[in-house]
Amino acid sequence: MKMNNHLLDQQIRVWLDEDIGFGDVTTLATVPENVDGKGILYVKESGVIAGLEVAERVFSTLDPTLHYHQKASDGEYLEKGTVIAEVEGKVQSILTGERLALNLLQHLSGIATMTHRFVEEARKGSEKVRVVDTRKTTPGLRMLEKYAVVVGGGHNHRLGLFDAVLIKDNHIKGAGGIQQAILQSRANVPHTTKIEVEVESLEQLEEALAVKPDIIMLDNMDVTTMEEAVGRVNGAAIIEASGGVNLQTIASIARTGVDIISVGSLTHSVTALDISLDLNQRKR
Amino acid sequence: MKMNNHLLDQQIRVWLDEDIGFGDVTTLATVPENVDGKGILYVKESGVIAGLEVAERVFSTLDPTLHYHQKASDGEYLEKGTVIAEVEGKVQSILTGERLALNLLQHLSGIATMTHRFVEEARKGSEKVRVVDTRKTTPGLRMLEKYAVVVGGGHNHRLGLFDAVLIKDNHIKGAGGIQQAILQSRANVPHTTKIEVEVESLEQLEEALAVKPDIIMLDNMDVTTMEEAVGRVNGAAIIEASGGVNLQTIASIARTGVDIISVGSLTHSVTALDISLDLNQRKR
Amino acid sequence: MKMNNHLLDQQIRVWLDEDIGFGDVTTLATVPENVDGKGILYVKESGVIAGLEVAERVFSTLDPTLHYHQKASDGEYLEKGTVIAEVEGKVQSILTGERLALNLLQHLSGIATMTHRFVEEARKGSEKVRVVDTRKTTPGLRMLEKYAVVVGGGHNHRLGLFDAVLIKDNHIKGAGGIQQAILQSRANVPHTTKIEVEVESLEQLEEALAVKPDIIMLDNMDVTTMEEAVGRVNGAAIIEASGGVNLQTIASIARTGVDIISVGSLTHSVTALDISLDLNQRKR
Amino acid sequence: MKMNNHLLDQQIRVWLDEDIGFGDVTTLATVPENVDGKGILYVKESGVIAGLEVAERVFSTLDPTLHYHQKASDGEYLEKGTVIAEVEGKVQSILTGERLALNLLQHLSGIATMTHRFVEEARKGSEKVRVVDTRKTTPGLRMLEKYAVVVGGGHNHRLGLFDAVLIKDNHIKGAGGIQQAILQSRANVPHTTKIEVEVESLEQLEEALAVKPDIIMLDNMDVTTMEEAVGRVNGAAIIEASGGVNLQTIASIARTGVDIISVGSLTHSVTALDISLDLNQRKR
Amino acid sequence: MKMNNHLLDQQIRVWLDEDIGFGDVTTLATVPENVDGKGILYVKESGVIAGLEVAERVFSTLDPTLHYHQKASDGEYLEKGTVIAEVEGKVQSILTGERLALNLLQHLSGIATMTHRFVEEARKGSEKVRVVDTRKTTPGLRMLEKYAVVVGGGHNHRLGLFDAVLIKDNHIKGAGGIQQAILQSRANVPHTTKIEVEVESLEQLEEALAVKPDIIMLDNMDVTTMEEAVGRVNGAAIIEASGGVNLQTIASIARTGVDIISVGSLTHSVTALDISLDLNQRKR
Amino acid sequence: MKMNNHLLDQQIRVWLDEDIGFGDVTTLATVPENVDGKGILYVKESGVIAGLEVAERVFSTLDPTLHYHQKASDGEYLEKGTVIAEVEGKVQSILTGERLALNLLQHLSGIATMTHRFVEEARKGSEKVRVVDTRKTTPGLRMLEKYAVVVGGGHNHRLGLFDAVLIKDNHIKGAGGIQQAILQSRANVPHTTKIEVEVESLEQLEEALAVKPDIIMLDNMDVTTMEEAVGRVNGAAIIEASGGVNLQTIASIARTGVDIISVGSLTHSVTALDISLDLNQRKR
Repeated sequence: MKMNNHLLDQQIRVWLDEDIGFGDVTTLATVPENVDGKGILYVKESGVIAGLEVAERVFSTLDPTLHYHQKASDGEYLEKGTVIAEVEGKVQSILTGERLALNLLQHLSGIATMTHRFVEEARKGSEKVRVVDTRKTTPGLRMLEKYAVVVGGGHNHRLGLFDAVLIKDNHIKGAGGIQQAILQSRANVPHTTKIEVEVESLEQLEEALAVKPDIIMLDNMDVTTMEEAVGRVNGAAIIEASGGVNLQTIASIARTGVDIISVGSLTHSVTALDISLDLNQRKR
Repeated sequence: MKMNNHLLDQQIRVWLDEDIGFGDVTTLATVPENVDGKGILYVKESGVIAGLEVAERVFSTLDPTLHYHQKASDGEYLEKGTVIAEVEGKVQSILTGERLALNLLQHLSGIATMTHRFVEEARKGSEKVRVVDTRKTTPGLRMLEKYAVVVGGGHNHRLGLFDAVLIKDNHIKGAGGIQQAILQSRANVPHTTKIEVEVESLEQLEEALAVKPDIIMLDNMDVTTMEEAVGRVNGAAIIEASGGVNLQTIASIARTGVDIISVGSLTHSVTALDISLDLNQRKR
Repeated sequence: MKMNNHLLDQQIRVWLDEDIGFGDVTTLATVPENVDGKGILYVKESGVIAGLEVAERVFSTLDPTLHYHQKASDGEYLEKGTVIAEVEGKVQSILTGERLALNLLQHLSGIATMTHRFVEEARKGSEKVRVVDTRKTTPGLRMLEKYAVVVGGGHNHRLGLFDAVLIKDNHIKGAGGIQQAILQSRANVPHTTKIEVEVESLEQLEEALAVKPDIIMLDNMDVTTMEEAVGRVNGAAIIEASGGVNLQTIASIARTGVDIISVGSLTHSVTALDISLDLNQRKR
Repeated sequence: MKMNNHLLDQQIRVWLDEDIGFGDVTTLATVPENVDGKGILYVKESGVIAGLEVAERVFSTLDPTLHYHQKASDGEYLEKGTVIAEVEGKVQSILTGERLALNLLQHLSGIATMTHRFVEEARKGSEKVRVVDTRKTTPGLRMLEKYAVVVGGGHNHRLGLFDAVLIKDNHIKGAGGIQQAILQSRANVPHTTKIEVEVESLEQLEEALAVKPDIIMLDNMDVTTMEEAVGRVNGAAIIEASGGVNLQTIASIARTGVDIISVGSLTHSVTALDISLDLNQRKR
Repeated sequence: MKMNNHLLDQQIRVWLDEDIGFGDVTTLATVPENVDGKGILYVKESGVIAGLEVAERVFSTLDPTLHYHQKASDGEYLEKGTVIAEVEGKVQSILTGERLALNLLQHLSGIATMTHRFVEEARKGSEKVRVVDTRKTTPGLRMLEKYAVVVGGGHNHRLGLFDAVLIKDNHIKGAGGIQQAILQSRANVPHTTKIEVEVESLEQLEEALAVKPDIIMLDNMDVTTMEEAVGRVNGAAIIEASGGVNLQTIASIARTGVDIISVGSLTHSVTALDISLDLNQRKR
Repeated sequence: MKMNNHLLDQQIRVWLDEDIGFGDVTTLATVPENVDGKGILYVKESGVIAGLEVAERVFSTLDPTLHYHQKASDGEYLEKGTVIAEVEGKVQSILTGERLALNLLQHLSGIATMTHRFVEEARKGSEKVRVVDTRKTTPGLRMLEKYAVVVGGGHNHRLGLFDAVLIKDNHIKGAGGIQQAILQSRANVPHTTKIEVEVESLEQLEEALAVKPDIIMLDNMDVTTMEEAVGRVNGAAIIEASGGVNLQTIASIARTGVDIISVGSLTHSVTALDISLDLNQRKR
């Protein structure tokens, strides 16, 4: 899985404690400790699955004696009813871990499915444009949500405030001009760090281009202006379109020739994909 | 604010580090350290605001010298464009904290706004029915999301696996019957803990009623069966309707006379409320 | 074991570091790394054992290569001298982990043994009364101490401030009356949360009963008044007796017909049960 | 206060969360946020008070706006009814922090009071003997419990496994003899670390003395043998008596001339000192 | 200060506990709590100072009542004997925090001083070349050490494995060729992430250039080959020289026209700058 | 390994996250997940190796499926080119963990090698003198650095402020005299804690000796004065020389007859030992 699993395991421990607290009183009171069973996870609606290894880590962190078998792979588009994984072992552990595993699967698959839709729409306008996420992620879930965007066919924007420069309106004001902002950034940040600048007009674009940013973000421009901008940049920088992107508009934006389209709603407004766990238990 | 602020502050520290890492390279490179300014937060669409004190804690945790002024209160329904808060001080700090503050405000206000809509619809069917959340929350955000549900006019279901018994199908199987599950729970859990049981039919309902659970959840029943169930319970237990609840169905469900309607989508499928921060800066 | 083992493991790590710091200088200097042996744990006085799995987790967290064999079960009343467990492997690890394992076993068994005595005395007055703990636990040990109470034959009161309402004198003042306190609680807390109220007189009892709390705590009442209270409640609420409970008084309190007797000294004044570890070592 | 306050504050945060979880549901539901008041803490039985600054840190960690006034000092022997501190401010915060503050005060004052009794008894046998604690402390509370022993007039033994060598029976076996154990320790540990050895007979004592340990522990010896041992050591090492020490035996043990008497029950079997908080509230 | 202060404070807490443990026994035993004084920090040898705000945070984290006054600024080259800061307040706190503050100042100033020397030497060969650090930093100190490099006049390379691609020999083998490695990276990483590739020969250089990496690292090349490489790249990529750089060779490497020279020894082999704290105490 | 491995593992987790963040973008993009290989670690210059088990724990913490084989032992003096360990398994994991493992090995071996040199020089002056470290360690690395000193043939001074008294100039001022400082310390600290005092003149030495400290540190004395001091102490205390110790002076200092020579530069100015990892990969 393309992330830091080590960090993920630490997060899972926090999330398990959030739900379990001092113990799962229902399961401990009703299910004998020596009952084994099999939990069958399946999708209740069609979509792109994401988080199958994350769910495995939830169960193994909670109880290392559980056995987990993936029946699908992250990134697959599955029809309603498809079994995605099975988890076998102590029923107490399966029931206690069920909710966190499902909450993660539903959330990540929701993101992957939506990303998939945006990418499909964008493909109607361009074969090569990238659909990317933003920093509008759920606090605490950035690594996982960015993973889910990739699973859904999208790409990632920067990870956080630390790994790329993104000069916005407020930074330009702070620096005293768009060129100063770019030049000061170049003077201060590592040579390994890219510099992106947000422009709101063709004038700003020209101004920015003169000092060679790596990436130019066209902020809330209409399609005609974007086309003009693409022409003027003419390959001198990567061009990112941002603002007002939705499933209706993305194809026409893609058609302008921009390289990147960033979509905040991929992660800030997630509709969970419905996923369930059924239990077939057997006596140990 | 009705939560454990102490715990919240710990979470905010984790979330800040997630975004900032080793530093906000853009702000540090472009905005001089001695520039002060004012960030103005406002809603870009109408809705119920939630998280104004959470946002304050984000800014004060990042930089205790910032001054934050609430211009609205959690729970208010605000028209598009309303200013909700101002934060004054070092521009570097305002820009570095902006994204986390907005991500939280947008997410929590999204939940509050949606809860508000469900409650309004439910009121059409019943004056007294409660709309409540579930454990289908975003991992790591349960306390905050449950807070936002209350802000939106809803109520909370149990916090986690530890504070109430909720006997579902799988627990009934584990215990060997619905009555055994209830009786074993009563024998084992604190006398301060309520026992809820999920029933899928009127037969199960009768069986359960005989051993006096505190709450009965009617799982995925049609409206007619629910009405029948409400009649049979006749005040002997709190009645909760669950499953298939949406803005179209909630009024008719409420009309059946159930006490509680639980809605997973309040927290598992959140549409962010659009909120922005504008900067009016002044020289220090 | 009826608790969140996952949380327990985190606590054990903290407790090991408290004792070991940068290393067990004595063991490292005197015992060669390649010496194996067997540690035999036994009780040096009679009592109810509690914490055998906790001790296992201490040793396995410190050194996963150790083998631990339980020779008794939590909840058994054991005669002086009985072997309760054996731990085999690297002598260095056995000696380094010994003290924490014993400190936990002695403390938890002390609680279980005392609980057992209270329950035995209470049984002389009532077959069905529950002896329960309070929130007067040792900071950091609540989960374990509540576990030990159950092992000793007792039951638990609420876990903390979050899982049940317990309205005391100061809350009644804050709310402006006993009925207001109950009604406000009912309006605000989840429908899954029980409401208990403390009453100091029969007048308060009547007042409280009128608004139907789930549990009534009779605070520091004499036995005659308790009997009267039990009669008046007549099954409309669970009745808990609290205050001034000791081994001499508990049977007569039980005889009044109350459902629950809470005893702070179960956890706030613990006499350790004497337990030792002897080492029979063999060359590896 | 003679400890690492910085470390203490971290522990207090953990303990607060243990009790408060997602929130104090009772206080939040019944006490308005804008009510101020004064909590008066007083002892309900006579004893040596310990933990007054610890309690202050509990309240200030929970709510920095509370004002706390000590009315007594750690180490004072107070008569029943004496007021020990007052805490003023938001009643919600006072009530939410009350239990943790009291649990700590009761536990530490219980230790200080018991230590005081042991020291008083020991003084009957010797003017200069030290009563010291052991590593039989409650997991997670070692720093605080060792502080309370000092407050009660006792002294501390080593802090943990890391700050002094204490060679016991099992280490002697591991090293192949008492002299080897001492010599190997001296060769390996820092020159700043003392070496103590436990002896069970006068023969072992002579053997140990030949290689000059810093401290000799007389383990479970009768008073006559101890006297003989003191004579033989004749100032060549510090002498510590251990095992079977109680309030009846300590004076006669002290009379033998040993320098140190260690008492496990100071910390492993604590009887809480009864302390309460009363609330006099006033409208803000 | 150009880093995440919030993260720094968390590290300082860990480092304080490493040194203080359960308490500073010497200071607590010898210095009365009510003695105030002034600690004067000064350099005992000439060099570039770094870490003055870090030291302030050490003292304020330990004891917020201390007052700290900087007498110099990070980045200044100071002559032996120059006072760099004063800290006033409780002498106990000054003495307890002294060692950690000095250890950090000495280490960071050592790095800044050495960086300064490398930059001065490099300037003899080129006005514009950057001297940068590597990932050969001390575990746990990367943020601070990279800060010190900047203070000394150097620049930073990437922060870690997450914020830039650096393709080395082993990655080329893994990908099956230098071009595949670059192309696969471009396909997978965010458009905001730069791609650097390490080449060991002019052949590899040509191969790499054909697929347009952002940065080319010339690994362990002699000066003549470097010059040739610079000519061939001809501005198409940033050029970084790496390997075998020391104070004797850096000027001639700079003269080749490379843009960047990375020097591992800036952080992996640090000579502390000698700094002391003297105490002038006065009665409170 | 002579340290608290349990604590070490926690540190390794922090250090891994410092380097890896959200993921190793290069390795994930270029090396297929199913490629296995062998990493061969070897020294590129001669020296004393230290940290071989630490490196093993780095790899096993990152990926428990890796196999690690030590080819040398900590403390061995190895010639340039010697293989010290091999690590086999998933190439992705080997490459991601490589840098942290090497950074630790290089740093610890640098300390061990330098210690070894100091010990060799000291041996020219005395067969029995100990070369010891100080508290001038890198923040966060004290346990590991003190381990490396022992591996290099040195010994440790106290671990921190908590495990021994070291009275310096400032404490003497605080206490009001050298004798008061010693006597107050003895009265307050555990009987298991040694007391060391720093003297700057023979007068101070005489004053100190009169109240019998365990250790006397001769601070920055010339060799002749040291000899005189050794004569005057005449075995009544352990004598430690400190200040101005380097490879040129240590033999003559050792010749004075002091017991201990402490050397700050062992840990505050570390030159890394050059160590590399080569990869021989094979298809899985």
